[in-house]
Amino acid sequence: MATTLKTPENASDTDAANQPIEVRFRMRITKGETIAIGPGKVSLLEAVRKHGSISAAARSLDMSYRRAWLLIDELNRSLKSPATISEQGGQSGGGCVLTPVGESIVRLYRDVETQAQAACAEQIESLTQLLKP
Amino acid sequence: MATTLKTPENASDTDAANQPIEVRFRMRITKGETIAIGPGKVSLLEAVRKHGSISAAARSLDMSYRRAWLLIDELNRSLKSPATISEQGGQSGGGCVLTPVGESIVRLYRDVETQAQAACAEQIESLTQLLKP
Repeated sequence: MATTLKTPENASDTDAANQPIEVRFRMRITKGETIAIGPGKVSLLEAVRKHGSISAAARSLDMSYRRAWLLIDELNRSLKSPATISEQGGQSGGGCVLTPVGESIVRLYRDVETQAQAACAEQIESLTQLLKP
Repeated sequence: MATTLKTPENASDTDAANQPIEVRFRMRITKGETIAIGPGKVSLLEAVRKHGSISAAARSLDMSYRRAWLLIDELNRSLKSPATISEQGGQSGGGCVLTPVGESIVRLYRDVETQAQAACAEQIESLTQLLKP
């Protein structure tokens, strides 16, 4: 089966048959027009923790360095205390680690996803029962 | 204050200050690459219920008729029994109403959002406490 993104135009019932049903929860905490904390920023924090720099994290997510840096900057500016510390400062691509605040954001956000799904198991089951197998 | 969408480039700390913090939960049930049930389709079902046709629902959401029709078609093809009934059939833009299945989808989906937020109140409070006021 092709792995290209399906659009309504090229998807078919045959493609959908026998594909597993997945449930994804996404929470966004917004302030005005800005998504202060959301799935993109949390995945980026996890990638920074794993790879040790914004540039390596961006590469691992197939994201430009510029976009990753802007997301981290936007996150840090929305927080009382920053989620990351850049070891060499500036935009030169030095090392970057999570602060305890950054670690808390990742943990709390992933807890929310797990707990939300558990709390709504009954409705999710009812919804998936409406879908073709 | 301008109502244009803020991007990292034109947003500033001043814009964000005194804006209310909002929490939004979004659940997507996917099958393969297709979002079988998600926030866009549920909002569209609600608009169909309110406005009585796909064309009026599309207008109310600032969406093209074609896109709305494709979303409804994709939803109905993913369900054992359809969520809508078109009163005149075809794509001619006649009336459209929700079936009991469509009503169930809207109710269950909105229940999930409310219940998820209630179940995660503690973590959400901890996360928002990390944000600047």
